[in-house]
Order: sequence, then structure tokens, then C-alpha cells
Amino acid sequence: MYESINEANEAITQRITAGQPVLVDVVRASEVLGVLDGDDRVLLHAGPTTTFNDMPPPMQGSCVGAALFEKWAEDADEARTLLEAGDVRFEPCHDHDAVGPMGGITSGSMAVVVIENRDGGNRAYSTMNEGIGKVLRFGAYDQEVITRLEWMRDVLGPALAAALKQTEDGFALMPLMSRAITMGDEFHQRNIAASALFAKEMAPLLASTDVDRSVVAEVLRFLSDTDQFFLNLAMASCKAVLDTAATIEEGSVVTAMARNGKDFGIRVSGLGDRWFTAPVNTPQGLYFTGYSQDQACPDMGDSSITETFGFGGMSMIAAPGVTRFVGKGGFDDALNTSEEMAEIVVGHNTSLPIPTWDFQGAPLGIDIRKVVRTSIEPIINTGIASLEPGVGQIGAGTVRAPMACFVKALEALAERYGVSDVGD
Amino acid sequence: MYESINEANEAITQRITAGQPVLVDVVRASEVLGVLDGDDRVLLHAGPTTTFNDMPPPMQGSCVGAALFEKWAEDADEARTLLEAGDVRFEPCHDHDAVGPMGGITSGSMAVVVIENRDGGNRAYSTMNEGIGKVLRFGAYDQEVITRLEWMRDVLGPALAAALKQTEDGFALMPLMSRAITMGDEFHQRNIAASALFAKEMAPLLASTDVDRSVVAEVLRFLSDTDQFFLNLAMASCKAVLDTAATIEEGSVVTAMARNGKDFGIRVSGLGDRWFTAPVNTPQGLYFTGYSQDQACPDMGDSSITETFGFGGMSMIAAPGVTRFVGKGGFDDALNTSEEMAEIVVGHNTSLPIPTWDFQGAPLGIDIRKVVRTSIEPIINTGIASLEPGVGQIGAGTVRAPMACFVKALEALAERYGVSDVGD
Repeated sequence: MYESINEANEAITQRITAGQPVLVDVVRASEVLGVLDGDDRVLLHAGPTTTFNDMPPPMQGSCVGAALFEKWAEDADEARTLLEAGDVRFEPCHDHDAVGPMGGITSGSMAVVVIENRDGGNRAYSTMNEGIGKVLRFGAYDQEVITRLEWMRDVLGPALAAALKQTEDGFALMPLMSRAITMGDEFHQRNIAASALFAKEMAPLLASTDVDRSVVAEVLRFLSDTDQFFLNLAMASCKAVLDTAATIEEGSVVTAMARNGKDFGIRVSGLGDRWFTAPVNTPQGLYFTGYSQDQACPDMGDSSITETFGFGGMSMIAAPGVTRFVGKGGFDDALNTSEEMAEIVVGHNTSLPIPTWDFQGAPLGIDIRKVVRTSIEPIINTGIASLEPGVGQIGAGTVRAPMACFVKALEALAERYGVSDVGD
Repeated sequence: MYESINEANEAITQRITAGQPVLVDVVRASEVLGVLDGDDRVLLHAGPTTTFNDMPPPMQGSCVGAALFEKWAEDADEARTLLEAGDVRFEPCHDHDAVGPMGGITSGSMAVVVIENRDGGNRAYSTMNEGIGKVLRFGAYDQEVITRLEWMRDVLGPALAAALKQTEDGFALMPLMSRAITMGDEFHQRNIAASALFAKEMAPLLASTDVDRSVVAEVLRFLSDTDQFFLNLAMASCKAVLDTAATIEEGSVVTAMARNGKDFGIRVSGLGDRWFTAPVNTPQGLYFTGYSQDQACPDMGDSSITETFGFGGMSMIAAPGVTRFVGKGGFDDALNTSEEMAEIVVGHNTSLPIPTWDFQGAPLGIDIRKVVRTSIEPIINTGIASLEPGVGQIGAGTVRAPMACFVKALEALAERYGVSDVGD
């Protein structure tokens, strides 16, 4: 269909730039994800395909929490026995149009956001951000965690769904993101601006529903307090747009990067749904008081879909405030990071100009050929989980996508296109 | 009391850095401003002392609107006759702990925010932002304008007051501003982040009141749609903190800069409430389609209290997005502007680190000695009003505070302290 890899990449670039993710609904996962709607026990997880036994402790903790939430078990011991016995089937979120942060564990009764890319017509799904402290995504599973998940399913989800019904046609997220990227957000480590814009724009919609007034106040309080609420919306937005781009089915652009705590996996536009994996790295960064690098869990989560889109570490210059938080220094370090990342992408996203980068657009389309040629691995901004389940986040830092993924993918691309055609 | 001007300036610096402006209430102006509570007709205005006849046309338009709003006249002609006859007394907002944007026209029945500086215990007042389009502050006075002012007095004001009663002790604005300055706001031309943070934090408070539900939705819609809502809160915050600093009554720090469309006036810490004035400049900048420089009204408004505090043009580097809007170019221009302004201030505000400035604090304390010695006039980001009343904003740009104000003030300072003591 395309004359060259570059031409295909150009088409992908256009699809990514044209992306129009719209939040259309909040529902139970089983209503939209067929795989979670059957009689068998299934959990979705972050990253490329894995098994319960290969998961790091916090991700296993998330599974225990999900099993308790789904009432598959009476207590944690019973849940763990069930999981270890192989009574639960695991599939990657990415195989079902979904993404999940950290452990990414998603079960049928959990509330998920429904994001439609108006350009492609396809949809993507994600659970919602639980806030900080004891949360499922970091492996906590005590009653507080389960109770919050129930509240999100029974109260928050339906309230947001009712608010969205007040809109003509859903809540368009690209205009919001193009404002928020001028406000210090890179949509991975920092979503303060986007979360605030989202909350203040949802507020009058929520107040216009017939949802119980005390519930409205409760939901507005949660949105106001949850600075990373937008992360999951950004992730599903990036997923929806990149899935549209992936329909090009040619070229050398990365369409997904994800980690399961053991492997780092990438997908490439010209190579379908195949994962190219390598052992995942452990993030380096700054630790909250009382924690240190030796307690850090290997990198996990689908949140690197934001970097795949061009956000997160790729757009570090948009969020110089993040550089200190992840231990990368000052403004120049932020600039250097994005300048380095600009060397491995196809172009810049003209829909997302970054004032602190002299209005250059966010990086767009990681090209595996450039990654291999320059030896520059994509950088990912990430939260650092404790290896011990339930402890939660113990720091924040950066991690590099391992080069081996890109080398393997380039080999496969050479096989498809011929070695002489994969030069960039 | 202080051994030297520098020592006094140091004390002022500490008071400004320690400033803790808190929004405590929204009331009718006459309830808190004694000057507006009498039987005689009084209007407050922006800038140093002036008369109706000396005001530029849009500021006169604002007066007509205020007269109609107060029901001093049946129609615009009657109002104008009344004003031209001298039947209304005019006093500067600044003389009554108040500030007003553009025309700054404030009458007794208007809703004003009450901001207390917890450090000093003093209070400052400002009307609220009306949004864009036909608005009183730009000289419009038709029924739409009067109806909105009535809504702000009867609906918005009481609703926000009820929401504030849900707090322990008011709504602390410095923590919000120290977040928003990392989000691209400089609090004069750009308040998107601060307005969003304010709206999303007010939302659950509002929902928790017994204010009518449809009113809650209406107020949340207004807050969500009004990107410059925070400007007036920032202005009154700066006023409250600078009025505390002015109690030092010594030193060479500018404590107010304000314009009335004819004169630019400054006040200086060591020189009390005396205005040092010079003819005001007309802003230079970019015009909305269909308008040009020859339609621009000479600079007006108390909003330059933000620059006096160290925001606005002084903190241009915090808001590189503004540089394009005001016609100043790219990121480097923003950086150069703040670097230039850093030469005329006493120090940096450690409470307000700016990530895009490598976490240097916002400029703090314009020193008239440095202004005169370096020949650097403070720069002010400003909206440009049409000379024709009621047309409203026709562009945005920058304007310089005229050097003559600073020279006059320095002469007065030399008179007070002795010529040899005013070297910096």
C-alpha cells in the first residue's frame, strides 16, 4: 500500500496528529470487555503476556485484591491459593483495547473509562486513578482498597457517566491536553493541570445531573484531591489514537510500550500485535523518606503508552517541574532529555506545541530504526513501586526502554521489508 | 528604625515573602468600604487620583455603567450628565484598600472579594472578573453588562460566600499561586491554571452548601468558563501583601503601580501614600482581527499591582505562552524579559520558585534606585482596551512604567534620607 517505510510512517504521523480522543462513558469493564464477561475467571494485566508466578510481588498483590473485589475468595490466603493454582486466566490489557497503570490488574466489575478516538472510531478502556496511599495498582489489597474500588464502581463511575450524558457528544480530551501541555504537564508523572481542567469542567455537568447532592460533593472532592486522576484518561487516549495509527499496518513506528515487572515489550506498526520483549529495567530516581533503590520493584505498567504517544519523558521539556521530582536536575536537563528524544522520533505533533520548547510540538512516533541507529533508548517517567506488596509508591524516577526490544523488532522488520529497505 | 535603606528593603522583602493572602468572604462593597456606604455618590477608580473629565472614554463608559447599576440615572444620557456635572465623587481604589482592573470602577452595590493577609492581618478588596466580551471594566454599559453585575451581586457573590463558610478559615491563595506559577501563569495576562485550580477546589465546597442546585451549576459553569477569574483574586492578594509591606514605611521598594488612562502612578515604601506620576504610555502588542494600534486606549487599571508584587511581566519566564499572545516572541524573549526585570528588584521570592527559570523565585520588590540607575522601566503585561467605550478588549500587549515616576520618587527619597544615602 505504501511505497516505503518512510511513507507509511508519514501516514501514521498524520493519524496520530489527527487523533481526537473523547471520553464518552464510564461503565463496568465487563460491559465493554467481552473477555471479562464470561463465566471463567479472567484478569487483565499490564505489559506483554505473563503469568501469575512471573509477576513481581506488588503485581501479585493487585491480583489478590482483584480476586477479593470480585468475591472469588474470602480472604487473601484463599485468593493467593486460587491464583497460584492457575484458576485465573491472565491476558494483557493491550490485547483488549485496554491499558492499566502499574500492575494494570483489571477485573470485570471494575469501573472503566470509555474513550473513543473520533478520527478512527475505535475505543480504548482504562480503570480510573485511585489516588495515592494504599491502592490496588501498587499491590495493596486490604479493606480500604476494596471499599474504594466498590465506591468507584457504585458511586464515582455512575456519577461521571451521568455527567457525561449532559454533554452533546462526550468530553473531548485533545483540546484539554493541548492546553495542559502548556501548563507543566507531561501526562505521565505530572497531570496536575489536566486533572484540574477536567475537574472544573466536569463540575457544572455533575451539578446538572439528578445524582444525589451529597454524592456530587463527594465526587467533586475526589476529583479535586486526585492530582493524577487524568493519568488514566491520558493513557486510554494515547491507546485509542495509537490503535488507530496501528491500522496502517506498515512502517517502523512504535505503537505500544508496556512492562509487566519482568519484561519490557514493544509493538511496531509494521509488525502487528507481536510483542518484542527484553528484561525490564528497574527505575532510577528519588525515594520518599525511608525508602531506597534496593526496595524498588522492576518497572511495570502500561503507562508508558504515554511515552509511545510522545508524552511523559519524551515531553520532559513541557514539565520542567518533573525533572526535580524524578531526580533529573533542572531546566536544562529537561531540555536535553526532550532534545535527545527528538532524535528517535519521526516528527513533532503540531497539535501539541510546547511553549518551553519554543513552541515545537511534542515528539511524535518513535522510529525503531532511529532508536537502533542512534543507540538512544526511549526514556520513561515512572512511579517507583515497593517490591513489597501493599507498601505502594516509594519514589519516582526514570527508566529506559531496553535496546534489545528494538533490535529484535528491527530484525523482524528487515525480514518483512528486506534488509536494504529498513534504513531510515 | 532601620539603619539603612537596604536594611528596610530587607525587612520589606521578608514581609512580601511571608505574605499569606486568604480569601475569606465575598460581600457588597458598601459592607466593607466605608467610603461607598454613605448617602453621597462615590465611585472608586483605577490608578492615581483623577477626575471624570480626565478619564479616557472606556473608563467614562464604566462610570456610566456603574451609575446605571446603582440606579442613579434612568439611562446613559442622564448618567453622563450627572457625571459631567460633578455629582459623583471619585477616589482611587488604592486609597481604600481596593484594586480594580482596567477602569477599576467600583460602586457600593458591587460584589467584592475580601482577602486577608494572615501575615499582616490587613484586608484588600476587588470586584470579580466578569469574563470576556461586553464587560464594565472595558467601558460597556448596556443591559447585558448591568444584568451580569446584578447576577454577580445577587447570585455569584452569595454562593461563593456560602462555599467559603464550608472552610475552616478561608481559602488560602498562596499555596494555589505557588502551584500555578509552575503551570504557566504569571497572574496578569494568564490565570488559566490558577482559575482552574480555584474552580475545582471551590466545586466540592459549593456542592456542600444549601445553595440552590441550579445556582450551584450556574456558578460552576461561570467559574469553569472564566479563565481570567483568578486575576482579580491575584490583584487583591498582591494588594493585601504589599499593604502589609508598606507598613515598614521606609526603604525604596515600590508598593503600588497603577494607571488611570492619563497618568501612571507609583507609591514607594519610604514615601507613604504619595503618588509619583507621569503620563501613561499606550500598550504595544497584538490586536484581535479588525483592530489596530491607533484604536488603543492609553494604559489603565490597578492590575499592575501584580507586577509590583513580582508577577505579570516581571515573571514572564513563568508563562512563555504569554509571550506570543502579547507579541513578544518565543521562549528566549520570555527569559530575557525576566532576566532584565531581575536587575531592578531587591531579590527573589523563595515562596514562588519558577521551574522554567531553573527554580529561581519570582522577582521581588522593585527598587526605584535600581530602576533609575539601570534605566530599566518595569514591564507590564496588559489587556488593550478600545478607545471607544463598550467595544472592550481589542488586543494584548506590554507597556513600560514611565521612568519619570521613578525619578520623581527618587528625588523625594533623597530629600528624606539625604542624597548620599540613596545609592544602592
